[in-house]
Amino acid sequence: MATGFDYKVTATDGRARTGVITTPRGTIRTPAFMPVGTAGTVKAMLPESVGATGADILLGNTYHLMLRPTAERIAALGGLHRFMNWQKPILTDSGGFQVMSLAGLRKLTEDGVTFKSHIDGSSHHLSPERSMEIQALLGSDIVMCFDECPALPATEEEVARATRLSMRWARRSRDAFGDRPGHALFGIMQGGVTPDLRAESAEALTGIGFDGYAVGGLAVGEGQAAMLGVLDYAPGLLPADQPRYLMGVGKPDDIVGAVERGIDMMDCVLPSRSGRTGQGWTPRGQVNLRNARHQNDPRPLDEGCTCPCCANYSRAYLHHVLRAQEIIASMLLTWHNLHYYQTLMQGLRDAITTGGLASFVAAFHARRAGGDIEPL
Amino acid sequence: MATGFDYKVTATDGRARTGVITTPRGTIRTPAFMPVGTAGTVKAMLPESVGATGADILLGNTYHLMLRPTAERIAALGGLHRFMNWQKPILTDSGGFQVMSLAGLRKLTEDGVTFKSHIDGSSHHLSPERSMEIQALLGSDIVMCFDECPALPATEEEVARATRLSMRWARRSRDAFGDRPGHALFGIMQGGVTPDLRAESAEALTGIGFDGYAVGGLAVGEGQAAMLGVLDYAPGLLPADQPRYLMGVGKPDDIVGAVERGIDMMDCVLPSRSGRTGQGWTPRGQVNLRNARHQNDPRPLDEGCTCPCCANYSRAYLHHVLRAQEIIASMLLTWHNLHYYQTLMQGLRDAITTGGLASFVAAFHARRAGGDIEPL
Repeated sequence: MATGFDYKVTATDGRARTGVITTPRGTIRTPAFMPVGTAGTVKAMLPESVGATGADILLGNTYHLMLRPTAERIAALGGLHRFMNWQKPILTDSGGFQVMSLAGLRKLTEDGVTFKSHIDGSSHHLSPERSMEIQALLGSDIVMCFDECPALPATEEEVARATRLSMRWARRSRDAFGDRPGHALFGIMQGGVTPDLRAESAEALTGIGFDGYAVGGLAVGEGQAAMLGVLDYAPGLLPADQPRYLMGVGKPDDIVGAVERGIDMMDCVLPSRSGRTGQGWTPRGQVNLRNARHQNDPRPLDEGCTCPCCANYSRAYLHHVLRAQEIIASMLLTWHNLHYYQTLMQGLRDAITTGGLASFVAAFHARRAGGDIEPL
Repeated sequence: MATGFDYKVTATDGRARTGVITTPRGTIRTPAFMPVGTAGTVKAMLPESVGATGADILLGNTYHLMLRPTAERIAALGGLHRFMNWQKPILTDSGGFQVMSLAGLRKLTEDGVTFKSHIDGSSHHLSPERSMEIQALLGSDIVMCFDECPALPATEEEVARATRLSMRWARRSRDAFGDRPGHALFGIMQGGVTPDLRAESAEALTGIGFDGYAVGGLAVGEGQAAMLGVLDYAPGLLPADQPRYLMGVGKPDDIVGAVERGIDMMDCVLPSRSGRTGQGWTPRGQVNLRNARHQNDPRPLDEGCTCPCCANYSRAYLHHVLRAQEIIASMLLTWHNLHYYQTLMQGLRDAITTGGLASFVAAFHARRAGGDIEPL
């Protein structure tokens, strides 16, 4: 595959693996959680703070960036890394998932999708070829194939049609991507919750050949049990010597379940989005800091956490700045949540390395059963 | 005056002075600009970042903090410094100015002011005694007298009445403050634009005796010429061996004019507020980064600036994140603006120390005449 992009498994524990992806912009320790920098920023964070949480790679959104400020403008300004001041690897999605979500505002054909911008209503077109062009203009390190992820609820026939269209688009994506040393192209498996369709999709993708493979079409409303059901067999349909990426996941227990089943990469807006609404994630569970029970509490959000939020601020302060709608509330809680997610990933990597994943996972679930904190 | 609070002039240049205020929480280099942390946060900034700009002291607002989260709650949590994670000195206003601005929602008597909260409509009372109590609960290092600043336009009779009420309240503030080693109490001169009233106010205040003196009743809509007119004589009515504080000022050229006239301390929301609306301050003038002329500009906001915003981001990026209403826009522009203000203060202090204030001021005005940047 592309020169300069490499993946090595360093340890396994059951179906779980830990390893390292090497790119010209740096290494990515897997399993990896990728914070989402939708519009050229991980919301409420400076990029150096994102790096300080332990993130090795960010995700950027093709759909948002192609509309504003446009991929051509970012390219003229030196690419997305320079534009947003993040020098480590960036993975970009293909734009497909977000365009498909624009129900009523888009038209799907064999060639691609024509849609209207949510910003100004202007008309745009995305196809495998255009998505590859945009992701190249952005300077993405890991490029995703353009695919169709059907909206739920969907019949098996609808899922089959979308899966087969996605496989034809995967071939066109591969051809359009060409040979770009140091840049990787990932295929995206579709197939919903139907094992035969998943197998058909995996066979088509591996026949084309990619630098890594995503498990798509999950975390779209099917529920955790159905998602983990697919993950019980889908990663095994993909090459063991290449990274497997579960798109759009998830909550901490989703992540743990996915890693147990052989997933290497994930992304989700949850830690940053929930930080902006006053939700803090801790080993003991999720905490709503807007709740009045925190207003006199001198303790940090998480007494065992070393992030700047927990090191320097009380629950009472976080409650106050949330109520006062101060920007620092989003800044501190996003930082904490990203730190918690990265700490969880480090714990998973360490557990796999030492063969202790089962006891790590048992302890993870046991801590969450106790409630978020002792009463004052 | 209070043990542990001290002010020394180290150099003068014309009427301007530079010096050092010493407090148990650290020293304050004067002339000093104090960023405003209204509700326990300098909006969109972490306190360590505020410190990194060169700020030696912050201002906190009694009115906002007494309503939410309340002074009693902050005291129970260890005081404002600990609450907001700022260990250097804090000056608090008395609450008077903001309460007086609540036209129609407040009732003024000899005792004090009864008013309704802008947050929930609840009824509250402020008096010299209650203001001193609140500022002590907050743990303020520099406490301001409770005064009345009449809203403009005001007749000379109204200004005279407010000035004399403020002097009676200054006496009561002094008595209520008591003896608090390491904490300072500042009097506030009133008198509008009337020299006789300014002299009467100064005589009353110095007769009572304070650790420093504010020039109040300016920057309330009278215009720069009228303000500088008062500053041509008012600082000279106050003791030369104590700090002089101009409240609520201001734009960079207001600050330069005030320092030239012997002012030692200032505060203003302008650099932080204008950062949140897309305005950047530079030696060449004010820049509206929302303007489309910046959308392809790879240059930093200020090519001579060393702040993290200018070191790492283009005007095009700032324009993009403003248009996309991203929080990082407020974070970066506030940081830049506070950095610019503190750099200006350091320049003024250095110029006074070396006797070069006149040429510094001439260069300051000359740079602003050239427009904010060369065309691309």
